[in-house]
Amino acid sequence: MLAKVRFVLVNPSHGGNIGATARAMKNMGLQRLALVGSRDHFTAEARARAAGAEDILEVAQRVEDFRQALHGATWVVGTTARARRLDLQRYTPRALAQAALSECRMGEVAVVFGRERTGLTNEELELCHAVVEIPADPNFSSLNIAAAVQILAYEMRLASLSDVEEVVQPDSLHFVDADAMERFYAHMDQALRDVGFFDVGNPQVVMRRLRRLFARTRLDENELNILRGFFKAAQSRVAGR
Amino acid sequence: MLAKVRFVLVNPSHGGNIGATARAMKNMGLQRLALVGSRDHFTAEARARAAGAEDILEVAQRVEDFRQALHGATWVVGTTARARRLDLQRYTPRALAQAALSECRMGEVAVVFGRERTGLTNEELELCHAVVEIPADPNFSSLNIAAAVQILAYEMRLASLSDVEEVVQPDSLHFVDADAMERFYAHMDQALRDVGFFDVGNPQVVMRRLRRLFARTRLDENELNILRGFFKAAQSRVAGR
Repeated sequence: MLAKVRFVLVNPSHGGNIGATARAMKNMGLQRLALVGSRDHFTAEARARAAGAEDILEVAQRVEDFRQALHGATWVVGTTARARRLDLQRYTPRALAQAALSECRMGEVAVVFGRERTGLTNEELELCHAVVEIPADPNFSSLNIAAAVQILAYEMRLASLSDVEEVVQPDSLHFVDADAMERFYAHMDQALRDVGFFDVGNPQVVMRRLRRLFARTRLDENELNILRGFFKAAQSRVAGR
Repeated sequence: MLAKVRFVLVNPSHGGNIGATARAMKNMGLQRLALVGSRDHFTAEARARAAGAEDILEVAQRVEDFRQALHGATWVVGTTARARRLDLQRYTPRALAQAALSECRMGEVAVVFGRERTGLTNEELELCHAVVEIPADPNFSSLNIAAAVQILAYEMRLASLSDVEEVVQPDSLHFVDADAMERFYAHMDQALRDVGFFDVGNPQVVMRRLRRLFARTRLDENELNILRGFFKAAQSRVAGR
């Protein structure tokens, strides 16, 4: 199950942290690391802190664009110290680990770690379905990135060792991946425009609300096809065909 | 309660690890650090990795003899990756945290971390009442010392927080009631008809799928209004208004 979980570091600023991340992951049986816009993932410091987990660094996916790192992921969870995005579901590390392993029965999970000082941008959080908050002391809540990785990897390993599932999704659901969801949102945006919905509403606010709604539920393939079929039908009628 | 827990590092070999340990502890609300035979606990590297937890380093107890670091402790727990000492009680990190907090009602707890490569000596383990084993991957089980500190400190903090909610819904969500959902489905059904969607699809199957989707997520008032607004806009255009 853990083979379907990837950890994504966005703009990691320090080779040592990348190496320590690899070590923390490998200690807990996790293998898949993706690095977005990383320059120094294989410095001497990175290798030293990896301390035997250099293989994780060697096969790490290296991409420039955040979306590329999410390819194939059906559930994307951002890490955040502060609940900035109150409209996303928030998980504890423990609940996240349970939910992630359930998700892995049918899909793949990406856990996203932001920049050391500034975290994830709002645009990046838009692509997340939920956030996980590590319950740190509110007076000193900023964890080192490898420390945050260690806690989440530890909880994932614990969850994988036990076989208790808290919430079981129906077998018949096959959630679509992040790319398909982005195409869905683009289509929905266009359909709303075409039927004149945005004549009254603020498009950005409306789309943010709709993203929140579908981030909560996510869509399986069949559902996505029904909704896109509906958009298409409405668009055709408006176009006068 | 956490004020009665101390973490003891025996012969820490690297200032960076000491700083990272201080940060990990402070993140989780732990304050008391003891360093046995440490030479470089306040190097530039230690300060850099402490990243705001230098106060923990400043007040850390510095001793030459392991026994001094245990003064006043009623329960001493050693960390070990391997169960070398099978005659000691072994705890998981989670069970340790619970037991440690119980102990703090009447005494004080010392959690002892050994040397990076060689761990604790048998003489040091003789002074421990129990050991804690972090459930790492057996193929790569040696954790960085600050990473081990992070996991145990995290479990202690969780245990000290009484009523953590596992999944928190955003405050701003106000789910609508079942009647409102039925009106929503009726409206959706009509909208699908009006735009000609059912010319191709089986209405019953489609509506059952859509019900399943919205049963999973549920809708808040605002979201429901957006979706009904969309249906209405599509219907108006089709009707030619």
